[in-house]
Amino acid sequence: MEKINLKEKLSMFSEHWSPKIVAEMNDYHIKLVKIKGDFVWHNHEDTDEVFIVIEGKMKIEFEEKIVELNEGEMYVVPKGVIHKPFAESECKIMIIEPSGVVNTGNIESDLTASNDVWI
Amino acid sequence: MEKINLKEKLSMFSEHWSPKIVAEMNDYHIKLVKIKGDFVWHNHEDTDEVFIVIEGKMKIEFEEKIVELNEGEMYVVPKGVIHKPFAESECKIMIIEPSGVVNTGNIESDLTASNDVWI
Repeated sequence: MEKINLKEKLSMFSEHWSPKIVAEMNDYHIKLVKIKGDFVWHNHEDTDEVFIVIEGKMKIEFEEKIVELNEGEMYVVPKGVIHKPFAESECKIMIIEPSGVVNTGNIESDLTASNDVWI
Repeated sequence: MEKINLKEKLSMFSEHWSPKIVAEMNDYHIKLVKIKGDFVWHNHEDTDEVFIVIEGKMKIEFEEKIVELNEGEMYVVPKGVIHKPFAESECKIMIIEPSGVVNTGNIESDLTASNDVWI
């Protein structure tokens, strides 16, 4: 096991909405993602999902509110809750969730990414 | 659920080696800790443990190596592996682990902290 430098890992890819796994803890994965623009409305029926903003700004839209997250801020989207992440400019985030979680949750979309890409 | 600002949460306490829970994801807790000086050798028999350095520098000593972590670096200490964290100057870190994990693991120590303090 080597230490993981988050900025170095972030420099290794440029695609948006394509989570990369950087670490495994028990049966959870820690992922880095670059996001820009609109994602799709979706939910994760079986799990909460943690977002932590490493660089930039993002928003998470819910049915009744919009949460704006700046660098150094985090949010836990509860299991089953429909949400849509988006970012006006590129934003670099960390996601923590059980291994095997698909980014678009219950929705099949052009934005559905492979859920097991390590960097 | 409100968003969590990590720096703001870190400003709310000053004790060392006293983890504060800031978020819950399924049955996992995300904790903030300020550390300075030497911790105790210990292991967590049932779980991996994630360390992420938010500010400062820390080291994790293992039986056969020492890992130095700077700001923006992380490490997963595998289940059962004996380790001793330490920091020359105060270091602010995030820890991710299942709820109920005690900071000193298998060891009773003056540094054993309550494992359910939220801020």
